[in-house]
Order: sequence, then C-alpha cells, then structure tokens
Amino acid sequence: MTPPLPKSFRFAATHCGLKSDASKPDLSLIVSDTPAVAAGVYTQNLVHAACVTVNRKLTPGENFRAVVVNSGNANACTGERGLDDTRHMARLAGEAIGAEEKQVLVLSTGIIGVFLPMEKIVTGMEAAAGRLDASEAALVEAARGMMTTDSVHKLAGRTVELSAGTIQITGMAKGAAMIGPNMATMLGVITTDARLDAPTAQQALRSAVDDSFNCISVEGHMSTNDTVLLLANGAACAEPLSGNDLATFQAALDDLCIELAKAIPADGEGATHLVEIEIRGCGSKADARRIAKTIAESALVKTAIAGADPNWGRIVSAAGYAGAAFDPARVDLHLNGTLLYQQGAPVAFDAATVSESIRANRQTDIVLQFGEGEAVARFWTTDLTAEYVRLNADYHT
Amino acid sequence: MTPPLPKSFRFAATHCGLKSDASKPDLSLIVSDTPAVAAGVYTQNLVHAACVTVNRKLTPGENFRAVVVNSGNANACTGERGLDDTRHMARLAGEAIGAEEKQVLVLSTGIIGVFLPMEKIVTGMEAAAGRLDASEAALVEAARGMMTTDSVHKLAGRTVELSAGTIQITGMAKGAAMIGPNMATMLGVITTDARLDAPTAQQALRSAVDDSFNCISVEGHMSTNDTVLLLANGAACAEPLSGNDLATFQAALDDLCIELAKAIPADGEGATHLVEIEIRGCGSKADARRIAKTIAESALVKTAIAGADPNWGRIVSAAGYAGAAFDPARVDLHLNGTLLYQQGAPVAFDAATVSESIRANRQTDIVLQFGEGEAVARFWTTDLTAEYVRLNADYHT
Repeated sequence: MTPPLPKSFRFAATHCGLKSDASKPDLSLIVSDTPAVAAGVYTQNLVHAACVTVNRKLTPGENFRAVVVNSGNANACTGERGLDDTRHMARLAGEAIGAEEKQVLVLSTGIIGVFLPMEKIVTGMEAAAGRLDASEAALVEAARGMMTTDSVHKLAGRTVELSAGTIQITGMAKGAAMIGPNMATMLGVITTDARLDAPTAQQALRSAVDDSFNCISVEGHMSTNDTVLLLANGAACAEPLSGNDLATFQAALDDLCIELAKAIPADGEGATHLVEIEIRGCGSKADARRIAKTIAESALVKTAIAGADPNWGRIVSAAGYAGAAFDPARVDLHLNGTLLYQQGAPVAFDAATVSESIRANRQTDIVLQFGEGEAVARFWTTDLTAEYVRLNADYHT
Repeated sequence: MTPPLPKSFRFAATHCGLKSDASKPDLSLIVSDTPAVAAGVYTQNLVHAACVTVNRKLTPGENFRAVVVNSGNANACTGERGLDDTRHMARLAGEAIGAEEKQVLVLSTGIIGVFLPMEKIVTGMEAAAGRLDASEAALVEAARGMMTTDSVHKLAGRTVELSAGTIQITGMAKGAAMIGPNMATMLGVITTDARLDAPTAQQALRSAVDDSFNCISVEGHMSTNDTVLLLANGAACAEPLSGNDLATFQAALDDLCIELAKAIPADGEGATHLVEIEIRGCGSKADARRIAKTIAESALVKTAIAGADPNWGRIVSAAGYAGAAFDPARVDLHLNGTLLYQQGAPVAFDAATVSESIRANRQTDIVLQFGEGEAVARFWTTDLTAEYVRLNADYHT
C-alpha cells in the first residue's frame, strides 16, 4: 500500500546511467512547491561522503525546495572534486525546478571512491524534473530511484489529526545493509506538510532517529553516507506545531521511523530472519542500547538464528561483554516467548519447539530482562547466512 | 617441530569421555615438580565461567603445582554447582599428584550451560596422572587435550640465554575462534623454568598478552572462559630475573605469545586467510588499537578478503567509525605492499594484480598509515567465508 502524499510535494525519478540496468531509476527528485524547513541526521563516520559534508552545513534550516538523490555512486573518498560534484548536482536540480543551489539537499549512495559521471547527471536531471508529479506512482518511482541492492522499495506514511488540521507524514528509505560489492548506505527522506520551525524539526528528527534508524544493524559497519532528512513545508497548517500537537506529531514520526528502519534489516541481503532484540530493566538507556547493539552485532548470535538454534549461551555472553554493568545472576532470557535462562541459570525447555518457532517465523524475538533499573531499548538486526557472505565476497574489481 | 621442555615440568592427557571421539584427549595435566609462581590474564566478560572466578582469586601467587584443563565443557553459566565442580577438579588433580587444591589451577572450554560430568573427570584424572612425562610426546598430548574444534595443536617455544643461565619458555594454546556449535574460547598455558617473583610474572604476562592474545579476533565475540596462564618454576635459575635478564625474558615471552596468538586466527574455522592489520602514525596506542580492532571485526572487510577483492573503501571507512580521532586527508593504505589510497584520495592501481596477490597468499597484509603521531598497533584476524557461517549455523540442539 502506497501512503498518501503530503500537500505541495512532488516526486520523480529517472534512469540516467549510474546503474547498468536501464529499467532501474537511479536519480530521484523530491520537490516541495513551497519552501520547507529541513532537518538532517548524518553518519558519525570521520570518513564521510561529500554530500554529508555539504548537507551538514545547511541543516537545520529554512527555505529548502528539493532533495536530489542518486544511487549507484556514493561520491565518497573523492576529495575536493567530490565536493564540487555535490554542489554541481544541487545547482542542476535548482535550475531544473527554479530554485537556488542552497535550497537543494543532495544524497548519494553506491560505490565508494569513484567520481560521479556528471554528464549523465546533467541529462538525467532534466528528464527527472520533467516528470515531477504529485502522484502515488511518482512517489514509488522516487523511492525506487534511491535503491541499490534493496529488493523492495520502502515507504511509510501517517495521517495525523491535529488541532491545527490534518497533516500527512510520508517517508521513504533505502538500505539492504550488506550491499555487495559495495558498502551499505542507509538513506531516509521524510516529507510532511506540517509546519515546524527549524530547531523543532531538528529535535523531532533527532529524537525519532535515535530509537529507529540508530537502532538497526546488519553487520555494524557504519557507512560513509548514512543520512535521514526531514522536510516540513507547512502546507497543511498555518502555525508551527507546539504543545499537544507537537507531541502527537512526534509520536507519529517516531512510529513511522521505526517502520521504515525495520524495513532495512527485514530486506537485509541473504537474510532469512528479522531479529528484534528488546532489553529491559537496565540502569540507563545507554546501557540498554549498548547491550542490544552488542547482541545484534554478534556473528555467533546471528548464525545461531540462521540455523534456528536456540543457543542462549551466545546471547547471554554477548550481553556480558557489552561494557554495561549488570549482575549476571539477575538475568532472564525469553526467545520467541519461551523462557530459556532465569536468574543466571539454565532452564529446562523443549529445544525442538523453540527451534521450530524460529524456523516457522520470519521474525525472531529476543527479550532480555535485567534487574538493574527501568531503562529499555529495542534494536533490529538480521541473521547471518552463508548467502550473505557469498553476496559480499564476490570478486568485482 | 615440538619445542623443548622447561626443566621440572611434566605433561599428560587422556580421553575421559567429555568429547564423543575416543581418539581425542579431553583432559590435560601440566605439572611442575617444584612449586611455581603463577600469573593469569582472564576474559573481561561479566558472564564468565566458574574456573575464571576461581583462578582470578588465586593469581598472581606462589606455590602452584599444576594446571588441569578439560575440553568439551566450558562449565560456564552453571552457578554455584559449577564453582563446586571447578574446586572439585582442582582437589582431584591435587590428590593425583600429591598437592593441595589451592596449588592447582583449572581451565575449561567447550559447551556453555551444561554441568560437568564429574564421574568421568574422577576416572580421567587418575589416568592422566599415571601418564605424566617430561617428553615432547606428552607435551603434544597435553596441547591436544585442550583442543575443541582446532584443526591443529598449537605449541611454541623459546630458549633464552641469560646471565642467570639458559632458560626455556614453552607455551600451548587452543582456539579456532568461531567454534560451532559452541562459542570460541581461547586458552593459553605458558611454562618456564625461569625464576620470577609473582608480581613480576603478572606484569610480564599482562604486557605480553596485551600485544598478542588481546590483538586477535575472529568475530569479536568475547568468550566466557578466555584465559592465559604463566607458570614459572625457577628450575633453571637461582634468583628471580631482573634488569637486562628480565628485559630479554620479556622480549622472548612477547615474541612467543605473538606466535601462539597468531596461530588462533590462522586456524579459524572456515577461514582461508590470516589477515595482519598494521596501524601506524596514530596519536595514541589506544587509538591505533581501536582502529585495528574495528577493521578486524568488519564483516565487509573480511568478506572482501575472502573474495580477494582489494575493496579499500571498506577498510578506510571502518577506520572512520572506530572512535579514534584522525584527519581523513592524511591517510595512506597499502594492501599486500601496493598503495591503494594516499592522503585521503584514490590511487590508480592494477586491481587484478592485487587481487591475485590476495588469492595466492594465505596471509593478507593491511598497512594503514595515519598522520597523527607515532603510535602503532598490530592485530590479526581471519577472513569471513560462507563455510564459517555454515559451521556456526548448523542446528545442534
């Protein structure tokens, strides 16, 4: 189901030749017909792409008109020329829609260390701008244009009733995590016709991303290009959101970001399971998240789930080296609802039944309860399969 | 080549039934006929085995007579009963060789969360003690008795000329890293006839382990049982080492620990490459080690090497998220001696030649040079193959 569009946004995509398969769009435009506030959250990698460097200086801010996204080339590790190319892309998109360079944000994803073929982008930008449309079909095309090895496009929407009026939040994301032969990049663009001032938009996005896009992992390799943008053009309400309306908006944004974020490990290359890890009863949120992330990134946990093996020792021992303080004698573990480990000691359980529950379900649920406090965290990851290794070890140079 | 034995040490192993294959020894004894100083370095995992809890209280110390090692069962996550079983094993070994419980250190490796079958160990201890011998064959058997899924036993020795006399250091280790269906455990026991006081022995071992056993990784999952012990019985010299003799001993111990430690990822399950990562020019040793470890644990780097793919973007971007501060524009990368990335920008190179050099050699060398200072670190890991996933995903319950 394609979500409805927020007011005064148009979408388009085209194939300009960055991908070899001509049936796959590789250049997307997301345009707000009225100036929008933009917020951004970016990779923490010191080695980051040109577009991250440029966008970071521009957001949060006002008066944005468009986001242009290319797939097939990350424009990362490309030095000064890469920065020039990013700015050139923004200028081209601006010219095509009647806006200035600084009103356009650029996103790139794909191979690292290769310069962008700008002549293809020049041609593609004209074509994309010519197709801009406020239709669900155009929205889907724009979401497809940011895909690399994703098997499905990723869209989510929320329609929210506020005292200020009915607003729409519609987001797209890409990422299939381990992306052979290149590195994964996670990108998200969220559009809304709610009105937000720039600092509020930044805070709302930061908060939503912390519990969603920052809580997913496939192999724990942080990309050079990861970016989530929020564009709020205010077309559906006159005044910036505050008070209860803002809280309602935040809850919808949080929920939408979790839906989009989970779609990334769910589409992980070679993955046969989406794994949801819920940590409860920690002394701090940071501890809970650290434990969740450590379990999510343990190859031993991930291979066990691929093999439908309720190997609780791997899960409990991963928690033990997360760097969070806890009493190992006050830990309970449930896997798909079955208690496997209680107060630091093994529990007799029917391994065949638990194994069958892993095998029969696409999602595996791990719940680890500590006795340290009230803090909780959720994290999503994939299992680790031989197919994933094959996809990423394939010789490509 | 089996290394020579240090004076006044005897070795033995037997099969007592912890492993299903009766041709594989699973209980080893390492006995010093004169009381020895013992030092130990242990896993930092909060969830650790009973033997780690017990040994940590005993070392560093004096007057030790033996180390007893069982494979096939980790005696981890086994609560109070596990602690009782560890103490019982020490008592049994002591009785068999004429020593007290507190003069014996116990090591266990194997499956987590299963109680030790003590009746098998009672019988096995008698048999092992009856075979104790100061021979190279007995040394090899003891090294085999600590193996789990290791494909080869791991021994190394150094004969060192000191002003105090000629001393011998002989060490054994086990670990094949990802060990299906259980968790990896790395164990090392180093014996020497040099004389050391207990604090010096502890400091010497700590220092050697930091640059060797603490610089290897296969999948980064920290075991519940990891332990390295040093036993020094002084049979070859009258006075505790100090000054130049101690420095010479330390250098030999460092070197021996690196040889043993490298043997673990070299024997990694399913691995086709040993990867040596050398980091130079960092602002601090901690930064250098953090970067090395992050690269070593990146599934994207490891799958690229399995595929003989000189995918430098994966290496450089892993450095970027290690949490160490550096200027990305002052980074050079060599892979198997070829410059791939210089001062933050791609370098033209013949990818087919570099790929062939990866394919043709069992060891892959990554050298990353930073421009921040003088600190260096080395780290060893494996590649990541589909075979490794298969070995660890196999359903076993």
